Amino acid sequence: MPASYAYLGPEGTFTEVALRTLPETATRELIPYVSVQSALDAVRNGEAEAAFVPIENSVEGGVTTTLDELVAGEPLMIYREVLLSITFALLVRPGTKLSEIKTVTAHPVAQPQVRNWLRAHLPDALWESAASNADGARLVQEGRYDAAFAGEFAAERYGLEALETGIHDAENAQTRFVLVGRPARPAARTGADKTSVVLWQNDDHPGGLRDLLGEFATRGINLMLLQSRPTGAGIGNYCFCIDAEGHISDRRVAEALMGLKRICRQVRFLGSYPRADVRQGEAVGPTRPGTSDEEFVAASDWVARCQDGRF
Amino acid sequence: MPASYAYLGPEGTFTEVALRTLPETATRELIPYVSVQSALDAVRNGEAEAAFVPIENSVEGGVTTTLDELVAGEPLMIYREVLLSITFALLVRPGTKLSEIKTVTAHPVAQPQVRNWLRAHLPDALWESAASNADGARLVQEGRYDAAFAGEFAAERYGLEALETGIHDAENAQTRFVLVGRPARPAARTGADKTSVVLWQNDDHPGGLRDLLGEFATRGINLMLLQSRPTGAGIGNYCFCIDAEGHISDRRVAEALMGLKRICRQVRFLGSYPRADVRQGEAVGPTRPGTSDEEFVAASDWVARCQDGRF
Amino acid sequence: MPASYAYLGPEGTFTEVALRTLPETATRELIPYVSVQSALDAVRNGEAEAAFVPIENSVEGGVTTTLDELVAGEPLMIYREVLLSITFALLVRPGTKLSEIKTVTAHPVAQPQVRNWLRAHLPDALWESAASNADGARLVQEGRYDAAFAGEFAAERYGLEALETGIHDAENAQTRFVLVGRPARPAARTGADKTSVVLWQNDDHPGGLRDLLGEFATRGINLMLLQSRPTGAGIGNYCFCIDAEGHISDRRVAEALMGLKRICRQVRFLGSYPRADVRQGEAVGPTRPGTSDEEFVAASDWVARCQDGRF
Amino acid sequence: MPASYAYLGPEGTFTEVALRTLPETATRELIPYVSVQSALDAVRNGEAEAAFVPIENSVEGGVTTTLDELVAGEPLMIYREVLLSITFALLVRPGTKLSEIKTVTAHPVAQPQVRNWLRAHLPDALWESAASNADGARLVQEGRYDAAFAGEFAAERYGLEALETGIHDAENAQTRFVLVGRPARPAARTGADKTSVVLWQNDDHPGGLRDLLGEFATRGINLMLLQSRPTGAGIGNYCFCIDAEGHISDRRVAEALMGLKRICRQVRFLGSYPRADVRQGEAVGPTRPGTSDEEFVAASDWVARCQDGRF
Repeated sequence: MPASYAYLGPEGTFTEVALRTLPETATRELIPYVSVQSALDAVRNGEAEAAFVPIENSVEGGVTTTLDELVAGEPLMIYREVLLSITFALLVRPGTKLSEIKTVTAHPVAQPQVRNWLRAHLPDALWESAASNADGARLVQEGRYDAAFAGEFAAERYGLEALETGIHDAENAQTRFVLVGRPARPAARTGADKTSVVLWQNDDHPGGLRDLLGEFATRGINLMLLQSRPTGAGIGNYCFCIDAEGHISDRRVAEALMGLKRICRQVRFLGSYPRADVRQGEAVGPTRPGTSDEEFVAASDWVARCQDGRF
Repeated sequence: MPASYAYLGPEGTFTEVALRTLPETATRELIPYVSVQSALDAVRNGEAEAAFVPIENSVEGGVTTTLDELVAGEPLMIYREVLLSITFALLVRPGTKLSEIKTVTAHPVAQPQVRNWLRAHLPDALWESAASNADGARLVQEGRYDAAFAGEFAAERYGLEALETGIHDAENAQTRFVLVGRPARPAARTGADKTSVVLWQNDDHPGGLRDLLGEFATRGINLMLLQSRPTGAGIGNYCFCIDAEGHISDRRVAEALMGLKRICRQVRFLGSYPRADVRQGEAVGPTRPGTSDEEFVAASDWVARCQDGRF
Repeated sequence: MPASYAYLGPEGTFTEVALRTLPETATRELIPYVSVQSALDAVRNGEAEAAFVPIENSVEGGVTTTLDELVAGEPLMIYREVLLSITFALLVRPGTKLSEIKTVTAHPVAQPQVRNWLRAHLPDALWESAASNADGARLVQEGRYDAAFAGEFAAERYGLEALETGIHDAENAQTRFVLVGRPARPAARTGADKTSVVLWQNDDHPGGLRDLLGEFATRGINLMLLQSRPTGAGIGNYCFCIDAEGHISDRRVAEALMGLKRICRQVRFLGSYPRADVRQGEAVGPTRPGTSDEEFVAASDWVARCQDGRF
Repeated sequence: MPASYAYLGPEGTFTEVALRTLPETATRELIPYVSVQSALDAVRNGEAEAAFVPIENSVEGGVTTTLDELVAGEPLMIYREVLLSITFALLVRPGTKLSEIKTVTAHPVAQPQVRNWLRAHLPDALWESAASNADGARLVQEGRYDAAFAGEFAAERYGLEALETGIHDAENAQTRFVLVGRPARPAARTGADKTSVVLWQNDDHPGGLRDLLGEFATRGINLMLLQSRPTGAGIGNYCFCIDAEGHISDRRVAEALMGLKRICRQVRFLGSYPRADVRQGEAVGPTRPGTSDEEFVAASDWVARCQDGRF
């Protein structure tokens, strides 16, 4: 039985493209699932070795479905992340001209990213939502719509041609995907890593959240994502999904996590993994003086010497 | 021309029920809009005096469409909030028995709140999503589905009957709605108020967000919502929608806002308004010593006396 | 050669009385020295096993001579502290009546503590300072002054009688003494301990000292003394002598010291030793949640499990 | 009756030299007093317009007598400070050669500053303390000692000659003096000012002092002196004498003082006055972004506009 990766399908979407950038996919079976939940369930119940799902994008922020799945239920861990720039192609049946397009389709998330382009080039086209961008392409193939916004890579699969490529309203539109598995040893430290946790506050007093963030700040750890999610205990009750710079094997991160563990009602560790926004092999050291591993080790040695009266 | 309130339609949804709890709606025309965006646009372009939209619920957290509309574009302000407990009724055509139900429908947001009930009572029923809960009820009326989950109040409008009421998976399921208008003098201070702001950090250094929250914490101000939203400048760039206890005319809140204004790249004031989770007439004083208005005034007087050399 | 303790002499002062409360003095030779500096030098050069000197009193604050000796030069460590309530007796040659007293003497430090008593009972007596309270008693014995303020215990040694005892202007007048030795393993943890350090800031920016104190505060460690001392690098340049609750083998204290070591230019550990203000056998736990040894160990275990992917 | 300034005498000391650097002394009678206490009492009881006393020196730190007088009793205020570099001359009777010097004298505070010089040049000379450096010079004049360490300016007054000048062990040895008067309007803001206060904590919890210092730190205000002084309520009970950068009419300083007033048990304002360590006319702006007066005013205006709904 070959190892398999579940991913949020269908085939031919940005998710699959992002997944295929991981070298190990060459030797895995890649299985599309209809939802984030079902892909993660496939991991939890052992059907799949790992699941690949979107977790954040530059237009919508955190992908709440993914976050809520990671926050609750049986623990999972993140082992990799992939960043993908999102630009759309306008796919049509071969031969269709721009002036002939009366109807366009795509997944609703695509709409805010092509709105300006549409207004400028196809002001009168009627928009209808599709279940996914790939599905939109299929519906164009079937003749149901005149054009679909989708990744350029989808053209070949559906026998379409790209009338226009590189369509995007926002500069830097990106989606971040994560590879999620059952808990195991975290990915090895690379020197440019990220650590994800979920925090539940012990109580709700003025400064409570400030104190949690202080555990990172006093160790010079920058935050890359802070997304509140309801705990289910009623309105106004939130836990916090946090991505922080550094790896759990960095002393400053380990100490911050210990601090959080002591003052939070609950902490869920979601993994340490290489940052996708830093070139491989490049290290991103801590910027605050006194927070490098060397300084941690030296300080720890010094306290040990004090405890022995040798200094 | 009578004053009118726009609201997120269609008629017969929880939004309309929540809106009608406001006494002044008796003298306003209430106009349903197809989206949060269109309702708020109606305010911005002068069609409506105010718009009533959901902003937070205990299952999904902040309503991102609403938050994003308030964060960007022409400034708007919140003047009132309403909390509504959400429980569903199972609506059927008169005479339908539970055992005859093969298909059910509702807005997708309803699904997580009735999932357990469905599993226990209608394990084999097929779920299909509707555009709104009211729309689901209409489709049952038309015979397209056997049953719809909706507010009990929708039964009469669509000639249906409630086979079951009070359906909810999560205890304390609530939605919070806000009444939004063009900028004007904030609602009067009641002693149990809430202030909403959007903050953009000046830069992104370790402790940056901790320092922002410190402006509230050091003045004993509790936070009730912290929701990050993408700024549009690329992945990892967020602004923060914050609800804090207190009114802008409370000295501690005014000083915190001034502090934020000085250290943030941008601050957008979204209003101060009475808290819906506190009984009217009940005051909720600051809990941290030294943060009452009296103490602020006394300290200010003292500094003035020092500046004059009289003490 | 018997082990000896140096102490700030001469004999017959409060220092000697405080020193004799230590059980081990029964088997040590106690040698008076003319100054704090010479007593500590005796330890540094091996003449004495330890030195017993005053370090803080409730009227004058930190004893700067002692602090400056501990701050600079070859490192020393504190192993014990003794608290002594200071009340004075008025010593006279036998038979002298109050009305016959025209001149009084004592060490200058005694003066603020007997001033009110003098004003009330001997308003016309002339005060002259003596080199020590014991020396004042000797000068009364020799007939040079009519009366001396000193510890009641000095009467016998100098053949004087106590006309009045229990004289003190300030309630709770106390002096704190410390037993200082060469660096060795700190005194064993008792559960009610104190840790002394000297801190030199790395630089002098707004919030620098606040951040140092934050290393204690975030671990729930109370401060019992903060005394700034000049570094010798010019006016405005200070290091800080700090007494903090807890023992270096308490996890919260060890972590705070490590934090300080990382962010300070220099840290000098002056020892952990039992608190004299707490009854023996009584434990003084940390008051802030999340700062007990058990919680530190649990958090450390949890991080180790996360690093192994087992949780 | 001409206005008079009291100062810590006797004549011919560094204090008098420092005092005479103030231009207004040309038109005042300068009256030496035997102690800091008596000089300040002269101000309190109206005998003198102001008193000039040492408050800090680079060898001994804060002058506790002066601080204790300012901390307690009837309030006084600081209006000016003077910094004086302290170097000593070796004064002898005319004709005396270095090799003939067997005994030297000076005030005890001088001893640590000339110790190395003595060791190198007069290793066998006997040191005896004098009541003041001026008094030491007088005793040399009278033939009681062979040489005195004093300010070079004292030579003429006592008919002595300076065998050597510029003697000082520590580089940058300085003493800071202050001109103290009854409470009145503070000295005008110059742009390079200092503010002195005394703080009494409300209670003694972990982080209490850190929070007090936070009131300065969060407004970007650097501290220049922090000296703890006993409150008289027993050992371990301290108030804090603090010198902070800035003037009470600077918005950031005024807001910090208000914050302290609200959270402290007591705050005593000791004045705002020009810094002596900055050249006249030179401004020393706040270094932390968001703490200038302009930014404070802009933030205050913005909150006022929000309160009116105009923004």
